[in-house]
Amino acid sequence: MTYRTSLGVAVIGAGRMGADHVRRISEVTSGAHVAAVVDVDIDRAKTVAADVDGCAAYGDVAEAMASPDVDAVLLASPGVAHEAALLTAFEHDLPVLCEKPLTPDAASALRVLEAEQRLGHRRVQVGFMRRYDHEYIKLKALLDSGELGRPLMLHNRHRNPSCPPDFTSAMLINDSVTHEMDITRWLLGQEITSVTVLRPRPSGNAPEGLADPQFVVFETDGGALVDVEIYVNARYGYQVQAEAVCEHGTARIGDPHDMLVTTGGRWGGTVTPGFVERFEEAYDREVQAWIDATRRGEVTGPSAWDGYAVAAVCEAGIRAQTEGRRVEVELADRPALYT
Amino acid sequence: MTYRTSLGVAVIGAGRMGADHVRRISEVTSGAHVAAVVDVDIDRAKTVAADVDGCAAYGDVAEAMASPDVDAVLLASPGVAHEAALLTAFEHDLPVLCEKPLTPDAASALRVLEAEQRLGHRRVQVGFMRRYDHEYIKLKALLDSGELGRPLMLHNRHRNPSCPPDFTSAMLINDSVTHEMDITRWLLGQEITSVTVLRPRPSGNAPEGLADPQFVVFETDGGALVDVEIYVNARYGYQVQAEAVCEHGTARIGDPHDMLVTTGGRWGGTVTPGFVERFEEAYDREVQAWIDATRRGEVTGPSAWDGYAVAAVCEAGIRAQTEGRRVEVELADRPALYT
Amino acid sequence: MTYRTSLGVAVIGAGRMGADHVRRISEVTSGAHVAAVVDVDIDRAKTVAADVDGCAAYGDVAEAMASPDVDAVLLASPGVAHEAALLTAFEHDLPVLCEKPLTPDAASALRVLEAEQRLGHRRVQVGFMRRYDHEYIKLKALLDSGELGRPLMLHNRHRNPSCPPDFTSAMLINDSVTHEMDITRWLLGQEITSVTVLRPRPSGNAPEGLADPQFVVFETDGGALVDVEIYVNARYGYQVQAEAVCEHGTARIGDPHDMLVTTGGRWGGTVTPGFVERFEEAYDREVQAWIDATRRGEVTGPSAWDGYAVAAVCEAGIRAQTEGRRVEVELADRPALYT
Amino acid sequence: MTYRTSLGVAVIGAGRMGADHVRRISEVTSGAHVAAVVDVDIDRAKTVAADVDGCAAYGDVAEAMASPDVDAVLLASPGVAHEAALLTAFEHDLPVLCEKPLTPDAASALRVLEAEQRLGHRRVQVGFMRRYDHEYIKLKALLDSGELGRPLMLHNRHRNPSCPPDFTSAMLINDSVTHEMDITRWLLGQEITSVTVLRPRPSGNAPEGLADPQFVVFETDGGALVDVEIYVNARYGYQVQAEAVCEHGTARIGDPHDMLVTTGGRWGGTVTPGFVERFEEAYDREVQAWIDATRRGEVTGPSAWDGYAVAAVCEAGIRAQTEGRRVEVELADRPALYT
Repeated sequence: MTYRTSLGVAVIGAGRMGADHVRRISEVTSGAHVAAVVDVDIDRAKTVAADVDGCAAYGDVAEAMASPDVDAVLLASPGVAHEAALLTAFEHDLPVLCEKPLTPDAASALRVLEAEQRLGHRRVQVGFMRRYDHEYIKLKALLDSGELGRPLMLHNRHRNPSCPPDFTSAMLINDSVTHEMDITRWLLGQEITSVTVLRPRPSGNAPEGLADPQFVVFETDGGALVDVEIYVNARYGYQVQAEAVCEHGTARIGDPHDMLVTTGGRWGGTVTPGFVERFEEAYDREVQAWIDATRRGEVTGPSAWDGYAVAAVCEAGIRAQTEGRRVEVELADRPALYT
Repeated sequence: MTYRTSLGVAVIGAGRMGADHVRRISEVTSGAHVAAVVDVDIDRAKTVAADVDGCAAYGDVAEAMASPDVDAVLLASPGVAHEAALLTAFEHDLPVLCEKPLTPDAASALRVLEAEQRLGHRRVQVGFMRRYDHEYIKLKALLDSGELGRPLMLHNRHRNPSCPPDFTSAMLINDSVTHEMDITRWLLGQEITSVTVLRPRPSGNAPEGLADPQFVVFETDGGALVDVEIYVNARYGYQVQAEAVCEHGTARIGDPHDMLVTTGGRWGGTVTPGFVERFEEAYDREVQAWIDATRRGEVTGPSAWDGYAVAAVCEAGIRAQTEGRRVEVELADRPALYT
Repeated sequence: MTYRTSLGVAVIGAGRMGADHVRRISEVTSGAHVAAVVDVDIDRAKTVAADVDGCAAYGDVAEAMASPDVDAVLLASPGVAHEAALLTAFEHDLPVLCEKPLTPDAASALRVLEAEQRLGHRRVQVGFMRRYDHEYIKLKALLDSGELGRPLMLHNRHRNPSCPPDFTSAMLINDSVTHEMDITRWLLGQEITSVTVLRPRPSGNAPEGLADPQFVVFETDGGALVDVEIYVNARYGYQVQAEAVCEHGTARIGDPHDMLVTTGGRWGGTVTPGFVERFEEAYDREVQAWIDATRRGEVTGPSAWDGYAVAAVCEAGIRAQTEGRRVEVELADRPALYT
Repeated sequence: MTYRTSLGVAVIGAGRMGADHVRRISEVTSGAHVAAVVDVDIDRAKTVAADVDGCAAYGDVAEAMASPDVDAVLLASPGVAHEAALLTAFEHDLPVLCEKPLTPDAASALRVLEAEQRLGHRRVQVGFMRRYDHEYIKLKALLDSGELGRPLMLHNRHRNPSCPPDFTSAMLINDSVTHEMDITRWLLGQEITSVTVLRPRPSGNAPEGLADPQFVVFETDGGALVDVEIYVNARYGYQVQAEAVCEHGTARIGDPHDMLVTTGGRWGGTVTPGFVERFEEAYDREVQAWIDATRRGEVTGPSAWDGYAVAAVCEAGIRAQTEGRRVEVELADRPALYT
């Protein structure tokens, strides 16, 4: 292997997440540099670009993608802007790491799928970064090995210390449980066929009117049953756990492990305070994997199909939540490009 | 306190469970002795009684209860015989430790409740022995302390290595999940108001036709959501776990803990092989607590009401399983005797 | 097996430990009753005996042992009184459960050994109750199985929340580390051949002048190396841990395990507050095992030889502590009665 | 902060470790590139350099350091070559990341110290990479916080699955326990004042003649007692653990934690198979920290003084091992540059 080309990346979106990716590519990952920062607010783009030697700032996505310095695109703008940016990237045949969601709904996601199919090869990696988490990777390897037999059930816990003030009951599904939708599909290699949403009496920690926690049940086309506890005002910290119950054994990830301190009558350790501490390394690995694959001329990782399928499950989830019943997921046929 | 009277116990039922209680009272617990063994098969009663110095054998329950040597009754005969034996014990005003189920259905359980009310004081302790398990006791104390706020959800796991050959899909509810019905009611201090039973594709370990595992969801009158995974052919061992998710924190019991061995590339320990190893101490404590209370002239522990309420939840559970839908629990008003 | 004779026990010593054994035999264990309580302070004996139906009080050990109601002796008087009481018990050929130490020094222990040999059969079980602890039993079974190969090292931790005000630096060896002396010999099946005592700078929690903690190293005649951390003012709770390092693996007991609580940014559980909570069950099992063996006409458990050997190691330990060097243990030849 | 200059690094030594650092700088870390590879075997240098775009190969250290493309030096040649290379680097005032040992003995290490002092500022970071391990960092932060009071003892375990065929009893001290020498000094902020080496009967896994395991005890100038179990043929995997016992509590790192699998009658997980899996991330962080500091014009991390002090403790350790007694460490006065 030769360590040569540094990949020129255009980061689209200069908000909190875009700026964080600029930092990551500049300071943490290897083999790429930020060649362009793009934001509809050109001043914001300039501010972020100013920190990076030789980095250009743009107010227009198409202009940036036309630059000969840009080899690849990291899409960190709001979801509503994704479809247009992806179609433009396809015109330039540029590889894209697209932050989740692929697009805000299943219909628009289907249009992206169709455009990528017309291109004839995959260009998109969707930012489901849990697939790059060490523990999930181990769990998947174990399930794939068949050592424990067929997975029968998957129990998931997803707890945040608190949610933003404008968080809605629907966002517990659309923003939070989307991670479990993707990870369920990936771990089991099965599609989700129905969603049920149960709502216990809300926690006193939740803002008035927010249905928090919720308990979500998926059925899959492989006959597995998946449950997800989502609780976004748990206060004590951030926790993501999964337990696969297979025919001949169980496997659990996400248990606390840490330095063990014993003092004041108690043993134990600290809980990860937030999302960033728990998954920062997964983000780093995700971006590094994308850079490495791109330099090899490959596209790996979660595909646009994965982005679409999660959007379809989300739509069923919101209906299930609203109507208080089990709702079946409507999924298009899977195109050959994604098999 | 004075350590004086040894309690004379009549053990009804000389089968496996009855004989085990004879051994327990004779060899393990303190303050009581087996005064009589009763079985419709008088020879079986005689065989068991022969091991105990001064112990009489009877073929008839009423005759045994009339003996002046009998101060209390341990009812370990099959469930169908419980109602008659309990009513006879009430006639003699004898305290009874009644193995679960109280009776085989809610209607007969209601009749027992009524008879005990006519008596005007509690005589029955029902054998829900998990309430005497160290870990469940700790969990209840924590929940009752209010330190973690209100319980929102309770996740339960119940795994057996294997089930008897004649086990049916209904028995996963009636025989196994009954423990979680009682423990849910006890831990939360709430009644169960509905049951839903979900059935993933059965494990290859399960005999043909058995719906194993199942996933059961309870709602309670306090707004809590409770889920129970029941898997009776898990092969690897016996596991009972519970995790309470409260407003400000979670508490989990039943995690493996044991001598930690590291060898051959692995760290870990052994799984409790079966029911007996996991709960033998709880059985011992249950019987000791009953002996101690009886000697003090008190009746404590799970009441006939608890036995009735679980029977009512079981009936809803079986309907939920058969009809594939959420079924509401029909519960009589709670008599004053049991408040 | 027949459950018949209740064993009449004379409890010698009506102090805190004697009274606790009276309670244990009366309320917890099965198959024995307290027939006599003996104390040089006859009033103290009477007070304790008054709680037990049909129990006599004595001021004189020999008188009590001569009673036809006494089948066995539980010796819970101060160590200085043990030798005389044991010799008297030998005269009546009574089985004795003798609280540790067997006697206060190796010379007197040797005299007891000789007396028991003249008797021609074992009568004494010494109260090293850790051998009855579940975890130590598991560890020994694993070592004996040979699965991990030969034990090479044994690391021990022994931490108390605090020590009595009159505790001396020597008592850390004589009172505390004696437990590890016995358990080392039992686990490994080897005799201790030398002792070294190291003293870090004392903890600020320790009273002025007390060398606390200390770090003790044993060598054994099987070539194993054993270290013991003893820290009797650790404040946070009571902890006893042991890790055996064998050729092909390690095994560790005494790790915290308990209900796992996650709240306020931390995961963990409570530390056993004291000695009683950690080893109460071992005490119960010890006494039950002694009652059961005695009723079968057997003597099992730690022998007078074990009591003597620990006394010999203690004497070496105190010299090692005082002289700041490695001291060899002087041990008599092991009599045939104890092999 | 501006992300600009890529640091040109000369990697000295093109063996296994040098090649690994070339890979790390090229593929993993950010902000530097390999500008030169140096090896006395120029062909080996050329082979490694050929993989890196624009990288030169040298057979001579001085020639490489004179290159204008070289901003910093990573010294991965054998220890005997370190002194000369370091002095040459000082001539060019180049920052050096020097793999351990600084030099093979205390006398040569002192000469390096003197040369660096003549330079007047620190140029050397020594490769004690454990200081960059997440868990050790947490432990140090806790100790430094004072929350647990003063550290009294530090228990260390260091187990390798196997050792190279030519490993000697001295190398258990010089190659393996050096890590604990450094980490003890760093964690406690104290110098080691004496070393004792105890040798249990060797494991049957150890090659004939190798004293494996060994048990090493340090005393420090702060009055702490430190023990190290070193066992380099433990077979089952690689384990590094540390437990600090402080006045008011304990803290332990290195416990197994991982996906928890329950199957076949056992719960547990896999042991880290080797050194690389356990500490790869620490290596990455070490080199990244060095690159980041160098780009900021700073020198951080373990200093030449740390390298010297460990060499002095090693010399005492070897004497202690050979002579079977406690040996005091002879340490020069600490120069102002290193305070």
